[in-house]
Amino acid sequence: MAGQAAREGCRLMAASDPDAGAARVDTAGQGRRTGLLSQYLPILQWGRTYNGTVLTNDLVAAIIVTIMLIPQSLAYALLAGLPPVVGLYASILPLVAYAVFGTSRTLAVGPVAVVSLMTASAAGAVAAQGTELYLEAAITLAALSGVMLAVLGLLRMGFLANLLSHPVISGFISASGILIATSQLKHILGVSARGDTWPEMLGELASGIDTINPWTVAVGVPATLFLFWVRKGLKPALVQVGLSPRAADIAAKAGPVVAVILTIVAVIMFDLGARGVNLVGAIPQGLPPFAVPSTDLELIGRLWVPALLISIIGFVESVSVAQTLAAKRRQRIAPNQELIGLGAANVASAFSGGYPVTGGFARSVVNFDAGAETPAAGAYTAVGIALAGLFLTPLLFSLPIATLAATIIVAVLSLVDLKTPGQLWRYSKADFAAHFVTIVITLLAGVELGVIAGVAVGLLLYLWRASRPHAAIVGRVPETEHFRNVERHKVFTVPHVLSIRIDESLTYLNARWLEEYVLEEVADRPAVRHVILMCSAVNEIDASGLESLEAINHRMADGGIGLHLSEVKGPVMDRLKRTHFVDELNGKVFMSQNRAFRELAANGGPPGDPIADMARGMI
Amino acid sequence: MAGQAAREGCRLMAASDPDAGAARVDTAGQGRRTGLLSQYLPILQWGRTYNGTVLTNDLVAAIIVTIMLIPQSLAYALLAGLPPVVGLYASILPLVAYAVFGTSRTLAVGPVAVVSLMTASAAGAVAAQGTELYLEAAITLAALSGVMLAVLGLLRMGFLANLLSHPVISGFISASGILIATSQLKHILGVSARGDTWPEMLGELASGIDTINPWTVAVGVPATLFLFWVRKGLKPALVQVGLSPRAADIAAKAGPVVAVILTIVAVIMFDLGARGVNLVGAIPQGLPPFAVPSTDLELIGRLWVPALLISIIGFVESVSVAQTLAAKRRQRIAPNQELIGLGAANVASAFSGGYPVTGGFARSVVNFDAGAETPAAGAYTAVGIALAGLFLTPLLFSLPIATLAATIIVAVLSLVDLKTPGQLWRYSKADFAAHFVTIVITLLAGVELGVIAGVAVGLLLYLWRASRPHAAIVGRVPETEHFRNVERHKVFTVPHVLSIRIDESLTYLNARWLEEYVLEEVADRPAVRHVILMCSAVNEIDASGLESLEAINHRMADGGIGLHLSEVKGPVMDRLKRTHFVDELNGKVFMSQNRAFRELAANGGPPGDPIADMARGMI
Repeated sequence: MAGQAAREGCRLMAASDPDAGAARVDTAGQGRRTGLLSQYLPILQWGRTYNGTVLTNDLVAAIIVTIMLIPQSLAYALLAGLPPVVGLYASILPLVAYAVFGTSRTLAVGPVAVVSLMTASAAGAVAAQGTELYLEAAITLAALSGVMLAVLGLLRMGFLANLLSHPVISGFISASGILIATSQLKHILGVSARGDTWPEMLGELASGIDTINPWTVAVGVPATLFLFWVRKGLKPALVQVGLSPRAADIAAKAGPVVAVILTIVAVIMFDLGARGVNLVGAIPQGLPPFAVPSTDLELIGRLWVPALLISIIGFVESVSVAQTLAAKRRQRIAPNQELIGLGAANVASAFSGGYPVTGGFARSVVNFDAGAETPAAGAYTAVGIALAGLFLTPLLFSLPIATLAATIIVAVLSLVDLKTPGQLWRYSKADFAAHFVTIVITLLAGVELGVIAGVAVGLLLYLWRASRPHAAIVGRVPETEHFRNVERHKVFTVPHVLSIRIDESLTYLNARWLEEYVLEEVADRPAVRHVILMCSAVNEIDASGLESLEAINHRMADGGIGLHLSEVKGPVMDRLKRTHFVDELNGKVFMSQNRAFRELAANGGPPGDPIADMARGMI
Repeated sequence: MAGQAAREGCRLMAASDPDAGAARVDTAGQGRRTGLLSQYLPILQWGRTYNGTVLTNDLVAAIIVTIMLIPQSLAYALLAGLPPVVGLYASILPLVAYAVFGTSRTLAVGPVAVVSLMTASAAGAVAAQGTELYLEAAITLAALSGVMLAVLGLLRMGFLANLLSHPVISGFISASGILIATSQLKHILGVSARGDTWPEMLGELASGIDTINPWTVAVGVPATLFLFWVRKGLKPALVQVGLSPRAADIAAKAGPVVAVILTIVAVIMFDLGARGVNLVGAIPQGLPPFAVPSTDLELIGRLWVPALLISIIGFVESVSVAQTLAAKRRQRIAPNQELIGLGAANVASAFSGGYPVTGGFARSVVNFDAGAETPAAGAYTAVGIALAGLFLTPLLFSLPIATLAATIIVAVLSLVDLKTPGQLWRYSKADFAAHFVTIVITLLAGVELGVIAGVAVGLLLYLWRASRPHAAIVGRVPETEHFRNVERHKVFTVPHVLSIRIDESLTYLNARWLEEYVLEEVADRPAVRHVILMCSAVNEIDASGLESLEAINHRMADGGIGLHLSEVKGPVMDRLKRTHFVDELNGKVFMSQNRAFRELAANGGPPGDPIADMARGMI
């Protein structure tokens, strides 16, 4: 009955297996289901089914995102230390490129806060803001990071992003938020200050305190307070007057535009430009120019490391947003193709006079909530920004820098996450350490060293743990076939059989440990005649691990002790069979720990040993 | 009965536990059993029991090692591009320092081939051989590496040596052997050639081919052939004439001394010095000078990376020898204290005009076979070398460089391992890749890049595997409580319960994978109502893994699917209990997969589903 049922079940599973297999393949971003061409050009997939309704939805979303993106792109260009117009340039062709190569239906690409800050620190290291070289460096950064992203994608190296753990990312984002907000204070106060690290910034602000421009403050502080209120207070208010929460949310996102209009009016009314309030000033009208990134190897030599960091950070931020949104609609993104999409976007940015871009969080959420259905929405947004570049720029002449600074401050402070540190401290000191180090180094030594330090600490702690894995002496839970840790459960053991459960794959990182551990445990138990290594948790044995097993086997043989394996996983056993280890093994390989223990406990015990006799009796 | 037996067994284990615990602690090299002072000064341990018999054994070993070490130290100094006498200096104080701080009873410290080669390439990068600065650089390398080793030891960072996997080490040693042998050919041929990489060396040799000195060849080639015969043919011959294998082995190790004497005689008889055969020449008589390493930060800045590599390579080579020998006598070494011992040895070397040293393989084996019982043997060897430095150096005036080169070539070619590549290829392509890359890069780009590349490739492959771990859909083996992979075994499953066995710890490296994998599998099975994550192989869940579990839990809840965990390990559960995850879990945590499957399969199945009904019936 059960046997037949088993076959039933087995057939059943077999039927659904190919699917599962394909799904797993797909997860790895290889999309075997679809043709190679449409794998690299996702537009061929969603393009086929494009129709009127989708068009309308995409258009609506595009208009809303455009309205939000105009002040944002100007502000982030400012944050990157670039002329505001560069922000517009970075918001046109990159969106089109991503629409062609990207796999997320709703990701909104363009300038983002953290990447802008990293661009500022990287370009600032090779040239002074406002110089030709500074702009050239920014463009070159976009080109380098575009090529790097595309290459990583083609090499299927998306997994490298895993090196950034959640604690490191959240620490980095929080610290960047603080850095960015601080860096913008100077625009609110109308003082001049520089610096890539927090102490530098604070110092410069303090020293500039006596040069504060009251008119700038009069614009900046109210603008900031207004935007905070828009973010926190406006939505509930709108809901009360009857708007749907979603509509209210989107309307609230338009707050910056209102601030922009109001402050422009204020500037014109009170002629604040003449009173020392910094204005955006003349923005060259027209479409993006055709730019060429630098081919100066010396410059590239100084920019490739920051470019790599910008690429990875940008990719991680973008892919997490894309995954979150895709999940909500049960859609899927292909991480490796995302690398190609973002790479194309950055190359496009470089050749149209822009700077590094990636998928932005706030922007993508708005795009999603506004009902965008395909990447085409991004292309339509690009058209909107292009029109703005053609016709709106004169209106922005009188826009105070302070307003843009206010929009940045309000946007980034929401990135600062105060809950995580406590949670991490309670759950895992190691993760807390990585989180904490990332925050501190980012604030004190800048964004680049911050990321590097975070990755390094995370990896070091991981390797440290991997080099001293968990293992347990196990005994049998009475009247069951289960074996549990002798230190945690009341279990049955016999003195001449030592059962060790290895709770880790045997790799070169812990090979030395394995040798030491097993030999120690045996040395401490003179009565032992048989050692069983329970391998239920051993998922892999690499060459170093195998060498250690062979060494242990020889040492046991010398001491007249049998070495046995139990519960070896299928894939692991397949590989062991390709070596001489199993033949040379001074013992047996058992399918189940229970069978191994029963057979070995019943014989070979020292004569007259009460427990062994009892074992012989009861088993 | 069994319950009582279980308590028996449990008490029994409990009794032996403290020991086991202590042993485990000791393994980590922290030596809680002994006092802190004698932990850092192992001499206080073996010193107490020192007596006459031990003294005799140590003295005998010391004399044999001294005889072997004199030509070796001269030769390795030559290999390092230093005056021969520096090799003697490096074989005196360092041995004394290690005798005080080292934990291996039989390790013989001094100049070794690979480290000498690395010294040559590091010092050669900052100065030309024969210059003051070159010598200063070598001394500074010893000082830097000494400090680094000691600091790593005090910080208990011995685990960092695990980054060098067996395949990388053996690849590096083989490639170094080839490089070293090639680098010595010029002394055998009497031509002048330079170069740190294989192509360079071969090129220089080829171009110097017409300047070959026949007399040098007449000395070098026979010397090489003689030493090869000593290594391969002499021992069997001696055994035939009745020597014990051990004695024969030791006698054979004295071969180089014979070659030294014979060639000196030949040089004097035929006045080869005048015929262009390079001789060792005048060696300053006397004890090592007091030297001071450079404090020039610019020089240190250029030397610290090679110094770190020399430290790690030296440590790995030394510790593996020490462990092998300790194991043979059931002794134990403490890796972290070994770092301190080797650090002290290198600092001592620096301050006595020497260069980087470590535990040598051949030398230590001789020391062991000759019956050395304590590190004191090393101190006696130091005295022997000191005496040689005082009185023998004049006799070495006429020693041909070619003889020293011959000893090096014969010694290092035995390091070249031709079997490993094939074995690795068969067992693990990943390990083979690391091995192969290490060999190629070492030969083509030098030793430093070789090590770095090997570590990088090994780590990259490890991280890649860690980012896409193994997991399996499991079903129950009929009439048992065991669950196995549905693709490998005939097992029983029901369509509304999906059991997934996660075969890896959940860390930040695979957190993203976990989310994708589980959601995919569920998406492909519309009938699923319950998902059981079988965690028998999950040894740790870090913060990133936890976040992914929470994300999965929310997604399941949205879809009205229950998420359950089974066979969660004790330590893992303890930590999960410190979070809200278990409370928010949209399902239960079961101790055994069997119980979970029985309970969930029996209820919640779609009505009228034959297999579910059958399940209800049979379970």
